[in-house]
Amino acid sequence: MKLATLKNGTRDGKLVVVSKDLTRCHPADDIAPTLQAALDDWAASAPRLEALYAKVEQQRIECQPFNQAEAHSPLPRAYQWADGSAYINHVELVRKARDAKVPESFYSDPLMYQGGSDGFLAPREDIPLGDPSWGCDMEGEVACITDDVPMGVSPAEAADHIKLLMLVNDVSLRGLIPGELAKGFGFFQSKPASAFSPVAVTPDELGDAWQDCLIHLPLIVDFNGEPFGRAQVGQDATFNLADLVAHAAKTRKLAAGTIIGSGTISNEGGDGGPGKPVSEGGAGYSCIAEIRTIEMIYDGEASTPFMQAGNRVRVTMEDAQGNSIFGVIDQTVVKAG
Amino acid sequence: MKLATLKNGTRDGKLVVVSKDLTRCHPADDIAPTLQAALDDWAASAPRLEALYAKVEQQRIECQPFNQAEAHSPLPRAYQWADGSAYINHVELVRKARDAKVPESFYSDPLMYQGGSDGFLAPREDIPLGDPSWGCDMEGEVACITDDVPMGVSPAEAADHIKLLMLVNDVSLRGLIPGELAKGFGFFQSKPASAFSPVAVTPDELGDAWQDCLIHLPLIVDFNGEPFGRAQVGQDATFNLADLVAHAAKTRKLAAGTIIGSGTISNEGGDGGPGKPVSEGGAGYSCIAEIRTIEMIYDGEASTPFMQAGNRVRVTMEDAQGNSIFGVIDQTVVKAG
Repeated sequence: MKLATLKNGTRDGKLVVVSKDLTRCHPADDIAPTLQAALDDWAASAPRLEALYAKVEQQRIECQPFNQAEAHSPLPRAYQWADGSAYINHVELVRKARDAKVPESFYSDPLMYQGGSDGFLAPREDIPLGDPSWGCDMEGEVACITDDVPMGVSPAEAADHIKLLMLVNDVSLRGLIPGELAKGFGFFQSKPASAFSPVAVTPDELGDAWQDCLIHLPLIVDFNGEPFGRAQVGQDATFNLADLVAHAAKTRKLAAGTIIGSGTISNEGGDGGPGKPVSEGGAGYSCIAEIRTIEMIYDGEASTPFMQAGNRVRVTMEDAQGNSIFGVIDQTVVKAG
Repeated sequence: MKLATLKNGTRDGKLVVVSKDLTRCHPADDIAPTLQAALDDWAASAPRLEALYAKVEQQRIECQPFNQAEAHSPLPRAYQWADGSAYINHVELVRKARDAKVPESFYSDPLMYQGGSDGFLAPREDIPLGDPSWGCDMEGEVACITDDVPMGVSPAEAADHIKLLMLVNDVSLRGLIPGELAKGFGFFQSKPASAFSPVAVTPDELGDAWQDCLIHLPLIVDFNGEPFGRAQVGQDATFNLADLVAHAAKTRKLAAGTIIGSGTISNEGGDGGPGKPVSEGGAGYSCIAEIRTIEMIYDGEASTPFMQAGNRVRVTMEDAQGNSIFGVIDQTVVKAG
């Protein structure tokens, strides 16, 4: 099934069931007022939501048009957002640019940071940028939402706790990252609010494209109207989403509504070198930092600037028939204040 | 006023107003069902809660007994928990033990990490420990809860957004910290669920002890029934709570219900050296890592072990008359699983 949260003037919005083709929706108020409420009692609410979805799909119930621009991120605020970095190619590239080696442990022990979850941007909401020197970047990713996950689950057990999938634009302030990481406490000011896709879907919606807790489809990232990234999400992932959920749950349980992200989707080049831009027939990049890194490796300096006011980023994913699965994240950077 | 959240079988519990002496309480359901709901509309709910508190204090309304053991952490789960490290003495000590210098920037740019907030331990709940080698430690701290904080506020503006104060036991797994910090993404597995005091209070409850956004009283930390820490919270703080809120809000707004912590309370020794244990007339320590550091400096090795199953930690704070202000955090470590 497909779920979304419509803006209704409240902090958590209103839960709706969305048709597979994203054209129609029906309120799910009588089942759960919000997506968090549904997740808080998922075992009871999921079958009822699935039944409503069947009615919507079979046109057995009157629907309203679904307008993606009226959608919040599926969880407008969440109790947990933890983002992994499963595509080590991304880490290798960024480190290669500064001649640093990737520690061996990174291939067996996932990188993950605790992100801010008190308020996400809506999928069509402007990205407020205080200072252009902060180096605003997009990061195209996928993420899952879990139900309650016990402490110490194995990856196989964790897989059963993946209830919904979304796309993410994990906004990053690259100019602030080196200073923050040097302090040793991880990201904070360098990770402002992220945005999620208008629609969250159950894994079965992906059909055969959902294998081994990975989505086997390309992530479509466009920048200022041009194709920028078409990286295969199912390729070059050192860890799948279940591995990341199990990592997060090693020393503590995770509460229902926990969002776990994949990190920036990143493919290796076919020839052993770094991936090529889309314009040169490559899979491109899911963030600006990667193309800058490649420019530094080849040209000695980065020529693509980070995002400025007026720049626009679009993140989506299509099924084999070219239909949007999650709806479209489409955001423009604006000067804040 | 004083507020608490009673366990009622739901994830967010039930909001009650508590008498100043912590003996009585009255449900605040008719004003807001939960503390988060009250914070979501604080401008409207706070005056009504204050009016109820006045009735409770003046015994103009029938109350039920308040039992701290029935209380959740005031926010059983929160949308944000960010913990600073305002007491640089703590950082200096930990670094001195490994001959590392504190960077100059630490005295002007606060350290802060994004903590997990999807589920806190109740103030009297056991601390589940999966593996004793993880090096379980307590950290006695204070924290504030904010309403909605705009992006880019100054410390002076941030002060007005501090609505409630609490005590914290920020549980830390010291054995996992070096490995996680070496990975560069900050704390994750090394910071399992924390616990907060049974009662949250508005700053005015502290009277003259609330000055410059600091609490000028000692934090009482007992370990296995013995006095362990009596550090003055108002002393040796490089940053106050408003500085920390402003730091958190530099690149993004903070949503109502954001919890910002002070970091481990830590006082310098009077003679320029490290502080002495309580048993030797000193202010002691608010975590085991500090006494271990001092043992390493003086004896070449740490002799106080980290917490094991059966160990007990108690964190509280008393006014000038010896009355508990926030109630008592009282937790025992248990083997998990």
